[in-house]
Amino acid sequence: MAKTIIVQKYGGTSVADVDRIRNAAKKVVKTKKDGYNVVVVVSALGDSTDELIRLAHKITEHPNERELDMLISTGEQVSCALLTMAIHKFGEDAISFTGAQVGIITDNAFTKARIIDINAKRIVEELNSDKIVIVAGFQGVNLNQDITTLGRGGSNLTAVALAKVLDAGSCEMYTDVEGVFTADPRIVKDARKLDRISYEEMFELASLGAQVLQPRSIEFAMKFGVPIHVRSSFSNKVGTIISKEVKAMEDTVVSGVALNKDEAKVTICDVPDKPGIAAKIFKEIAKEDINVDMIVQNVSRTGATDVSFTVPGVDLNKTIRVAKEISNKIAAGAVAFDKDIAKVSVVGIGMKSHSGVAASMFEALAEENINIEMISTSEIKISCVVRKIHAEKAVRAIHEKFGLSKK
Amino acid sequence: MAKTIIVQKYGGTSVADVDRIRNAAKKVVKTKKDGYNVVVVVSALGDSTDELIRLAHKITEHPNERELDMLISTGEQVSCALLTMAIHKFGEDAISFTGAQVGIITDNAFTKARIIDINAKRIVEELNSDKIVIVAGFQGVNLNQDITTLGRGGSNLTAVALAKVLDAGSCEMYTDVEGVFTADPRIVKDARKLDRISYEEMFELASLGAQVLQPRSIEFAMKFGVPIHVRSSFSNKVGTIISKEVKAMEDTVVSGVALNKDEAKVTICDVPDKPGIAAKIFKEIAKEDINVDMIVQNVSRTGATDVSFTVPGVDLNKTIRVAKEISNKIAAGAVAFDKDIAKVSVVGIGMKSHSGVAASMFEALAEENINIEMISTSEIKISCVVRKIHAEKAVRAIHEKFGLSKK
Repeated sequence: MAKTIIVQKYGGTSVADVDRIRNAAKKVVKTKKDGYNVVVVVSALGDSTDELIRLAHKITEHPNERELDMLISTGEQVSCALLTMAIHKFGEDAISFTGAQVGIITDNAFTKARIIDINAKRIVEELNSDKIVIVAGFQGVNLNQDITTLGRGGSNLTAVALAKVLDAGSCEMYTDVEGVFTADPRIVKDARKLDRISYEEMFELASLGAQVLQPRSIEFAMKFGVPIHVRSSFSNKVGTIISKEVKAMEDTVVSGVALNKDEAKVTICDVPDKPGIAAKIFKEIAKEDINVDMIVQNVSRTGATDVSFTVPGVDLNKTIRVAKEISNKIAAGAVAFDKDIAKVSVVGIGMKSHSGVAASMFEALAEENINIEMISTSEIKISCVVRKIHAEKAVRAIHEKFGLSKK
Repeated sequence: MAKTIIVQKYGGTSVADVDRIRNAAKKVVKTKKDGYNVVVVVSALGDSTDELIRLAHKITEHPNERELDMLISTGEQVSCALLTMAIHKFGEDAISFTGAQVGIITDNAFTKARIIDINAKRIVEELNSDKIVIVAGFQGVNLNQDITTLGRGGSNLTAVALAKVLDAGSCEMYTDVEGVFTADPRIVKDARKLDRISYEEMFELASLGAQVLQPRSIEFAMKFGVPIHVRSSFSNKVGTIISKEVKAMEDTVVSGVALNKDEAKVTICDVPDKPGIAAKIFKEIAKEDINVDMIVQNVSRTGATDVSFTVPGVDLNKTIRVAKEISNKIAAGAVAFDKDIAKVSVVGIGMKSHSGVAASMFEALAEENINIEMISTSEIKISCVVRKIHAEKAVRAIHEKFGLSKK
């Protein structure tokens, strides 16, 4: 019977230098020796991709995206060759491939391409001849054989997609943290590592600022039904399994608390309270590729209302410019902004069937005298905007309130 | 009528940093604006290939050659993407390709592959849509789609091969010197730049240590009948044309003087003077991949003889070891070596039809009291081994003797 295939993905921090590459190689070899067929997806060394991008920007402010992909895809090609050499050094047979060589076919959207097909024939052949297969993450080719890259978290997409087509028994994501925690352990001392979490919860946590996995790769894993095991490349401990919702998860009302300090609030004052105005505002903003997060509109008493929304901090200047143009067009008032905010959120599949979660969260904040400036909710999430200086205190209070440190 | 195609090759020093990449881009754009179709072959930035090799050797002393090619081929991929961006910045349309993408098919000899075919369809298409085409030098793929590299001077081979299949009007090699000189200008102040030189002479000069082009790329150009224009990327001056012998060349008896200080002499003493012994010695040495250059065997008077030969200095230790083993096997005597030698050579197509060249050379050395230790000649070359400390003086004396500074 054919051996079970395990897909392992090593992120940039896991292959940042020669020692870490050796360490990753050791883990790969151990898995092989444990009796599995191993396919490894690897990211570029440390911050080498950023260095290449800086080099491109020294040449031109707006590098052509096809050429940018040609350039930055070399990062993963370097790391997969080096990891393969390190595996050889441990006496196991291994072979490296670019995205193009293993037939990772994408659309033409350079720098943010989508995988449309994988022809895994070559990988299967090499596995059958008992080799470990190392694949450069983050990249593919379009039908024209032009090199494309998959955007942020692209190596995770490669790993999930390969796990799917190879029908792998497991997709392990090696990173620099031990798994997914109930809160950032740097903020909450007794934050607890979760054994399991659902895709939906992880998706919300990731969207809310938990840095473990990009929302896009979770969405992708959820779509393909590939369970992900997030674990540390610096220990042998079991990490967190991200999978579809199982019955036991529903007993946990809240899984974790997330914090995002990278957003800013923009308010367009005195917006005429007429149908279609909100649509007009956010259509214009979307046109500029700005990702709006929370939106709050006060009830109008005077025929005019204030519209507030949050955007990523990096987009603030652009957003203010656009907001002012819109305000002129629709005859609204001044545009105000606030960078000193933070968004605190609780996430949990159990919220669906438990009431009172919002009330408990608000209570936790009230007990600490923290004012809530905006509120936004989804089926499995409640977010509150507070002053940035209160952010950590708010996370700790909420974590304590829901008793998250206890299993 | 279709435009004439010019192939330009930029070496590592010509694209060593952002400013030089911009400078190269400017030259490319000028050629395009002068009305040509331009195909550019580019080497890796500065010494980035060496850096990648160092990285591999930190992982393992003996990197697998397929993986090494996977690794080091990224150097040219980086430089061709950056050069393309720089050309865009000057407002011209350009597109970059890896060796694989433009169908440079090689054999399976990783790290020293030979080009067996080029399918230039994609290049022709892009030229026809008025783009400048930038190709990563030094690399190709085998029929299995594994990335290969072409060995030292590989980018020159790429340029010559493309010039051939595209039927280019010219193949320009941009480097950090102004062309081919009658001697190294750092040694001989009044050394003169040659307007033309034959493949054969250039081949000898290159083999003899002139650093402008590798012997292998000249052999390749000669085989395909592609004229090469060696010129500086830091000036607009015309350089040296390397082409097949033309009538006028025969009037020049000697074209240039070359110096090689990187060889060492090895002597196996008291070798039994029997048929087949020399063959035995040099077959064993060849087995170890050591390139023997000059061989001198003294006439035997006693039934035993001394066999001396020169090898690249880097191979000296290995050669001594092999020579001792051989000496044991064939019952010869001690093995001596000498690192303090230099080889001075004159090269000229005209030698074929002029006598007395050797005599003049020996006379020049005698006048400076320089002792000749070994002599080797070919149809168009005479080489003498002298003490290393006399090397520069020898070159100047010979250059003067043949009046090479005058046209």
